[in-house]
Amino acid sequence: MNIGIVGLGLIGGTIAKTLNQHYTVSGYDISEATITYALEHKIIDRSYSDLKLFFEDNDIIFLCLYPNAILNFIFQNKHFIPKNRVIIEISGIKKYLISRVEELGDLPFDIIYTHPVAGREKAGIMHSDEKIFANANFVITPVDKNKKQNIDLVSDLAKKMGFQNISIVTPEQHDDIIAYTSQLTHVLSLSLVNAISTDLDTRRFIGDSYRDLTRISIINEKLWPQLFINNKEALIHKITEFESELRKIKDAIIMNDTEKLESLMRKSTQIRLSIDRGKNNES
Amino acid sequence: MNIGIVGLGLIGGTIAKTLNQHYTVSGYDISEATITYALEHKIIDRSYSDLKLFFEDNDIIFLCLYPNAILNFIFQNKHFIPKNRVIIEISGIKKYLISRVEELGDLPFDIIYTHPVAGREKAGIMHSDEKIFANANFVITPVDKNKKQNIDLVSDLAKKMGFQNISIVTPEQHDDIIAYTSQLTHVLSLSLVNAISTDLDTRRFIGDSYRDLTRISIINEKLWPQLFINNKEALIHKITEFESELRKIKDAIIMNDTEKLESLMRKSTQIRLSIDRGKNNES
Repeated sequence: MNIGIVGLGLIGGTIAKTLNQHYTVSGYDISEATITYALEHKIIDRSYSDLKLFFEDNDIIFLCLYPNAILNFIFQNKHFIPKNRVIIEISGIKKYLISRVEELGDLPFDIIYTHPVAGREKAGIMHSDEKIFANANFVITPVDKNKKQNIDLVSDLAKKMGFQNISIVTPEQHDDIIAYTSQLTHVLSLSLVNAISTDLDTRRFIGDSYRDLTRISIINEKLWPQLFINNKEALIHKITEFESELRKIKDAIIMNDTEKLESLMRKSTQIRLSIDRGKNNES
Repeated sequence: MNIGIVGLGLIGGTIAKTLNQHYTVSGYDISEATITYALEHKIIDRSYSDLKLFFEDNDIIFLCLYPNAILNFIFQNKHFIPKNRVIIEISGIKKYLISRVEELGDLPFDIIYTHPVAGREKAGIMHSDEKIFANANFVITPVDKNKKQNIDLVSDLAKKMGFQNISIVTPEQHDDIIAYTSQLTHVLSLSLVNAISTDLDTRRFIGDSYRDLTRISIINEKLWPQLFINNKEALIHKITEFESELRKIKDAIIMNDTEKLESLMRKSTQIRLSIDRGKNNES
């Protein structure tokens, strides 16, 4: 079984690093420098400049591109990808991508929609690192057309990549919870940083809390607008729910309502501790 | 020079641990269990049950209590604290505390207002740890009555406790920047957690970003309402500024305005990187 990876960035590079211990891994990337780096560091075994050959030689092909580039890639290459190939896309949004792919009609190959919930505030193959996947979460959102054996195959590959939890949910469930756990957190972090207003040297007044909350405000501005806009419905809903919780705290402060603040803090403490225990869905 | 510490919680315990390498450190706490723990673990050298003796024997006294308890303590003991004692309070708010203390009139001892910008999402002496102070920030907000030699003494003690940056600013500057770097971050973290709404097991869908942003939602609900309410003016202002930045992102998503989102992300990335370099005040 040969693995091909289109797009050797942070995630594509990490997939290559984790899977080339088990399989022959080939890479395709529009940047020659990236291919050279990947070959020199033995992150991939082979590179291709001819996509047709790449499709011929590899049974399983990961598309590690930004969401819109994944759509473009499938659109431009749908006639060249042989039957029985397993195509795995890894973007952070699902409903939008699936509905756009379905507009292309019947395709002879099987596309598995996945989301490795992992990242780092730096892009590019030079930051790819097995540690990013270690004990992280991996989500698969099957569609009717998927063959069961291919879903099982991808689950197995995710385990080999180091992921701890493989979850299978609907595209709607994925987009709803990721809008909250990932996209909303990034929206808040960058709003917090952009709200800065001081003449002082901030670094002399911060603690771990500010550092933790603002780490992800160092953000890939080419990727994230696509994730936000293409999951607009769910994300706007989550932002509105957040605004309402923020308003509760603001009102309690304005009204000197210590009791209300204590109750909101007890609630957040209890929810956060129960997430650590994996029990937030049992309440 | 003898050091006395009133209140052996997370911060009081850590001050004791860092200073008893240099001085004789005594403790006073209303909890007998805490005193026993502190003596058994050699966190303090001596304990007192008689406050008058405690004041007699110790030249420098740290008040490591919640803000309202600091006020009560000073009010109840102002006639028993001898002249020339240096009293160091360590709360996270300054203007409110200073103005309330000034209502007490002329006091014979010198109160130095400080803020060790350090903490942990767990309270109590058993979690006290020198690591909390290592390379952290320490802020002093002098008032007119303070003797220069006492400010210098406290700066020196902060260095001995392991703090990296000792900053001297006005109470107004302190409250303004801490409302942003510390209080607003806690408000956001707990609002984020309280906005949760899912039937799924959240733990299977989160990455480092959610874990980082929600760590401080495990919060001491007896302390933080006092900090929020007693710094109301600055904090409400910061919340409002944050809401306005959040609204910019929300509007850009609604309008599919990729360019605006990219520009907001470039801004947050640039600010956050410049904070790492200590240059955010030079822009």
